[in-house]
Amino acid sequence: MATLESVTQALAALSITPSDTVEHASASSPAEWKEALQTASGAPKEFELLKVLVFKPKTAKGATPVPVVVVARDTTETSSSSLAKHLNLKDLRLASEDLLSEFFSLDKDSLSPLILTAETFPRVTTVIDVSLATAPVPLAVRALSSHKTLFLSGADISAYLRTLEIAETKLHEVDFVALKGDAAVGTAAQPKQPTDRKEKKPEKEDAKIEGAVQIAIGVKKEVDFAAWYTNVLIKADMLDYYSVSGCYILKPWSYSIWETIQEWFNSKIKEMGVENSYFPMFVSQKVLEREKDHIEGFSPEVAWVTRAGQSDLEEPIAIRPTSETAMYPYYAKWIKSHRDLPLKLNQWNSVVRWEFKNPQPFLRTREFLWQEGHTAHLTKAEADKEVLEILDLYRRVFEELLAVPVIPGVKSEKEKFAGGLYTTTVEGFIPTSGRGIQGATSHCLGQNFSKPEMFNIVVEDPNDPTGQGKTYVWQNSWGLSTRTIGVMVMVHGDNQGLVLPPRVASVQAIVVPCGITAKTTEEQRLAIAAKCEELVATLKKVGVRARADLRDGYTPGYKFNDWEQKGVPLRLEIGPQDLAKSQTLGVRRDTGAKAPISLAGIETAVPALLETIQNEMFTRAKDLYWSRIKPVTEWAKVVPTLDDKCVVVLPWCEVESCEDDIKERSGRAAEPQDERAPSAGAKSLAIPFDQGHWDPIIPGKTKCPACGRDSKRWTLFGRSY
Amino acid sequence: MATLESVTQALAALSITPSDTVEHASASSPAEWKEALQTASGAPKEFELLKVLVFKPKTAKGATPVPVVVVARDTTETSSSSLAKHLNLKDLRLASEDLLSEFFSLDKDSLSPLILTAETFPRVTTVIDVSLATAPVPLAVRALSSHKTLFLSGADISAYLRTLEIAETKLHEVDFVALKGDAAVGTAAQPKQPTDRKEKKPEKEDAKIEGAVQIAIGVKKEVDFAAWYTNVLIKADMLDYYSVSGCYILKPWSYSIWETIQEWFNSKIKEMGVENSYFPMFVSQKVLEREKDHIEGFSPEVAWVTRAGQSDLEEPIAIRPTSETAMYPYYAKWIKSHRDLPLKLNQWNSVVRWEFKNPQPFLRTREFLWQEGHTAHLTKAEADKEVLEILDLYRRVFEELLAVPVIPGVKSEKEKFAGGLYTTTVEGFIPTSGRGIQGATSHCLGQNFSKPEMFNIVVEDPNDPTGQGKTYVWQNSWGLSTRTIGVMVMVHGDNQGLVLPPRVASVQAIVVPCGITAKTTEEQRLAIAAKCEELVATLKKVGVRARADLRDGYTPGYKFNDWEQKGVPLRLEIGPQDLAKSQTLGVRRDTGAKAPISLAGIETAVPALLETIQNEMFTRAKDLYWSRIKPVTEWAKVVPTLDDKCVVVLPWCEVESCEDDIKERSGRAAEPQDERAPSAGAKSLAIPFDQGHWDPIIPGKTKCPACGRDSKRWTLFGRSY
Repeated sequence: MATLESVTQALAALSITPSDTVEHASASSPAEWKEALQTASGAPKEFELLKVLVFKPKTAKGATPVPVVVVARDTTETSSSSLAKHLNLKDLRLASEDLLSEFFSLDKDSLSPLILTAETFPRVTTVIDVSLATAPVPLAVRALSSHKTLFLSGADISAYLRTLEIAETKLHEVDFVALKGDAAVGTAAQPKQPTDRKEKKPEKEDAKIEGAVQIAIGVKKEVDFAAWYTNVLIKADMLDYYSVSGCYILKPWSYSIWETIQEWFNSKIKEMGVENSYFPMFVSQKVLEREKDHIEGFSPEVAWVTRAGQSDLEEPIAIRPTSETAMYPYYAKWIKSHRDLPLKLNQWNSVVRWEFKNPQPFLRTREFLWQEGHTAHLTKAEADKEVLEILDLYRRVFEELLAVPVIPGVKSEKEKFAGGLYTTTVEGFIPTSGRGIQGATSHCLGQNFSKPEMFNIVVEDPNDPTGQGKTYVWQNSWGLSTRTIGVMVMVHGDNQGLVLPPRVASVQAIVVPCGITAKTTEEQRLAIAAKCEELVATLKKVGVRARADLRDGYTPGYKFNDWEQKGVPLRLEIGPQDLAKSQTLGVRRDTGAKAPISLAGIETAVPALLETIQNEMFTRAKDLYWSRIKPVTEWAKVVPTLDDKCVVVLPWCEVESCEDDIKERSGRAAEPQDERAPSAGAKSLAIPFDQGHWDPIIPGKTKCPACGRDSKRWTLFGRSY
Repeated sequence: MATLESVTQALAALSITPSDTVEHASASSPAEWKEALQTASGAPKEFELLKVLVFKPKTAKGATPVPVVVVARDTTETSSSSLAKHLNLKDLRLASEDLLSEFFSLDKDSLSPLILTAETFPRVTTVIDVSLATAPVPLAVRALSSHKTLFLSGADISAYLRTLEIAETKLHEVDFVALKGDAAVGTAAQPKQPTDRKEKKPEKEDAKIEGAVQIAIGVKKEVDFAAWYTNVLIKADMLDYYSVSGCYILKPWSYSIWETIQEWFNSKIKEMGVENSYFPMFVSQKVLEREKDHIEGFSPEVAWVTRAGQSDLEEPIAIRPTSETAMYPYYAKWIKSHRDLPLKLNQWNSVVRWEFKNPQPFLRTREFLWQEGHTAHLTKAEADKEVLEILDLYRRVFEELLAVPVIPGVKSEKEKFAGGLYTTTVEGFIPTSGRGIQGATSHCLGQNFSKPEMFNIVVEDPNDPTGQGKTYVWQNSWGLSTRTIGVMVMVHGDNQGLVLPPRVASVQAIVVPCGITAKTTEEQRLAIAAKCEELVATLKKVGVRARADLRDGYTPGYKFNDWEQKGVPLRLEIGPQDLAKSQTLGVRRDTGAKAPISLAGIETAVPALLETIQNEMFTRAKDLYWSRIKPVTEWAKVVPTLDDKCVVVLPWCEVESCEDDIKERSGRAAEPQDERAPSAGAKSLAIPFDQGHWDPIIPGKTKCPACGRDSKRWTLFGRSY
């Protein structure tokens, strides 16, 4: 097996000194890798990515496969069908992780020419991109790891591989550009069932947007959604990668959205009598592990502090993955009488869940920001009521602030919060991937945490005539995280970048001076600038978050792109014509619609237009969501409907084994799994509270399409995040 | 040496089964220990504390001392002078830590009857409280550790100690109540120089406030300040102890103060163009250790995550102690041109510094909340300006919100931020202890972090006519923490509890119905309640945070105490007389002053009164601070002035070795050290910006009173937190 040391020695023998290994956030896609390198210290200013693809040719059963290893510049189009034809092989498919593991003891994100050694080279067919030798800048080469990279020149890479050649096994040098020309007249069949994201590569080249200028998003949302998403986040200045894998920097452009959500939500929960507080981030092992079901849900992901300075701690201390068990011993202490109820505390903090799956900004991160509310009540009725009140606030955060439609409902027993009684949810939907996404959850914990063998949170029952009765309190917990922001980006963003709903945009209207040419007098120029500033001042007075972009040295076109990319809802242009007519040209980010607005009525026109944008964004997203929710009553239609990027609503039996079965059966037949979206099988997403959208279920007559048992309620099933 | 196992075996031989060991926050004072136990799970509902005191009798030089070990109920008054007389010993003093360590290998917070074994018992004199055997509830016994406790009956403790008796060494059973009676006529000298907190015990009994009802603070601020402070925090519902040592729960009553500070400070920094953001809590080791001076200041206190779930991490990851090195690699990436300057980011988060010294709520905690601002500028002049603008905001947080006077100034080279260029500070003062306390600091980092060998944050210099020049950016960082709240409590609190300045009080006016007797009709009662609610509604309309306390089953007296303890600035009483006269009786928390207020003008009278309270609280505190700042020009007066609970202002030479010397010399001669206040020697606190308070320093003529060198500036020196 190749090790970094052994390979470095081999290179040294050729007088090739690679750069120091650069460590960076673990990166999977090329876009991620590139971003990670640009963030990391030690990477050269200019470099190209090197790609290494491993294909498995169709092999007779029982025969040992000879994998094809392609080493190419990332910018080179490496069509697998053309290559197959060229090598006279049938049906090249990207190798499975198993094969990679067997041959190279590595995963695909660690692939590098360095996997080729005297040991492995004879067992594979190696193809090298002819243009490699002439690459003008250093190439980024995976240092046998997804989070370590070194840099070598193309010439050095070729030189190294040449040393491995033996009589029986030579390098295949391929001119992919010429090959493409040949393939254009060829008829090699495209693989029908791609088994890996990377095989889509040739198709994904289409994602590059024609004529896109340097600052635009660069890939199409519909074609390479994962790359589009991270590009939008980076280019809209929402976020940056960070040197600890799975953690991200929230820049002001996204953090301000979180602040808006906080302010709104705080005002609402304070009206409900909830108070904010702060509990420590640390939890002792004993306390954390108090509730068995609960901790089972979290323990694989708990981060442990074991050392402080140079001293090992007596006992490891956990960083909270959530705070139920940390808080409730104190609830037991504080709640001495029914007069101490309800107790309603909330905290805004960050929690840590050390996921080992691929991280995705906002959606799956090792640390994330959220609020967690924890309340205790005398009766179940009070607890039930609050669960729904909070859920409705969550719905309003999505719908009224983020213009993202969600469906409120209850989770199945299988999907509920570990240790709770029941979980309510607002379920969102990402049309581009056709996947459901959990928006936020409000749990009733019942008396599970308050019971005597658990935290023993008990009061005398004031309604018991004997005065002897005890009541274990009824508890809720509820949380909303920065995931909200990721969902908003995915739902509204387009191929120009981010699209922000006005209510959460930190800049709602950007004023840009236009139409200034060589002929424009200095006086006119100053008058336009002054008018822009005046307009901003006027708008600020009526509460519009407006800003003027008076930067020198940038063209209006550049500024338009810049603010479009950042999603500012409304652009207001002022040129000499506008000045003359006392108007401004308004351009909506969401629709691109342009219309002049008279400066006379601007104080009412702009706020009204922003409201219109907010409402129309929501309505469009809602219509799209509902157009993708398909009631299905026969099993045969489930997978095709899911494959059409829809969510299915089944008249479901609510039996857990049936749910497992649906996931299994829908996963098996499913589309190739996108590694960023872990569930290819359909899960139950929610049982919507409003069942009136679909035909009434007739007890004893309507049957579950998955198992044939009696149906209970219409339930959303879908692939999900 | 006694171990828990060996002692448990010895107890088992007597058929004594102690409870399971209860783990809790490390506790020093009895009050802390009791609170910790009430928080911990596993402690019985009712218990008493057992105290174990070790005294050293005056012994001839060279002779081996025979320590006296007293095992008593915590409620028993154990006068050392009476005991000395009873045992016919001279001058019993509490044993030093050295002696405890030598005899028992333990510190005083782990002392327990279990230290007495067949080995140690013959070497000491053991005194047992006669009332022990009849204690009605289990006694909390230190399990040879400051954070582990077990519970035994008094009878079992006696039984165990009896088994250790041998012919030469018997237990001394003492009736301390009877002894006290005897001592009243005795003349045993009190020790003059107490060397330990516990030896003050008899004196501290005076701290118990006469006739204090159960909910009052219980100890006097002037007598046992440390116990008073924690009691106030607990009883005012500000805070609770937590199961991880050095961490505390911020309850809504204190967290709301932090929210008020956040809101105010956010609005001010946003006006300055600072934007909020969020950086991850984790920092890789490599990044953390980038700046040597800087990390030296923090590394002994860094908490390390080494494990996630069941997997050891490849490399340990730090939890940020502060974020300079975590953020600045990204500043280097983001700042490409002078047009990207200034970059001004702030974040509200928590940081972790794993202190091994005694923690103290708000002042020294292992996790604390703060904001950290990090900015980059093109020129030193801009950076300098911002440092002072921020410092002035910090001054206003203390003075205008918390009514706490502070003195703005610059830190000495020795006391500045590790790795920075200079540090400015607002210095506060705690009159009760006579100690200075750093309020908040605003640092100019200079170009130390931006220089090429560090983070290389560089732009082309727009002012360089050749166009070739480069400028390394000028950086600042500045932080304000929840320590603010602790300072406020210490400065304003009194023997009735907390005193809140109106601007940060979450309840500014509490309306309490009064004068309801058996003769009051139901109609009158309802009318009073209605008037209370009406008054609250009226006050809320004019922005006063008012609340009515209409709880049934509590007397007005109980309510008065309750809200006084919690520090509500103004109480408004409404009784039948007030109703008749259309007035309310206003009672100020800060002064106790009472005066009727006509309901007719209440909308203006109450806000005005709250303003008056705010201003007078500040003025009183400021006058007190300045009355304790003493300019001193001769060394002989330094220590006596410090001992008078003052801060000295010296015309100082600003030589670092002189500063070390002052600390050394003032510490040596100093009062007994309070373990909660680590520095007995005087440090330089600040060089005040405003030097005009004191006589002008004449260059070459005015001399430093500590070393005789030429004076530079008047500098505050004091004992400090």
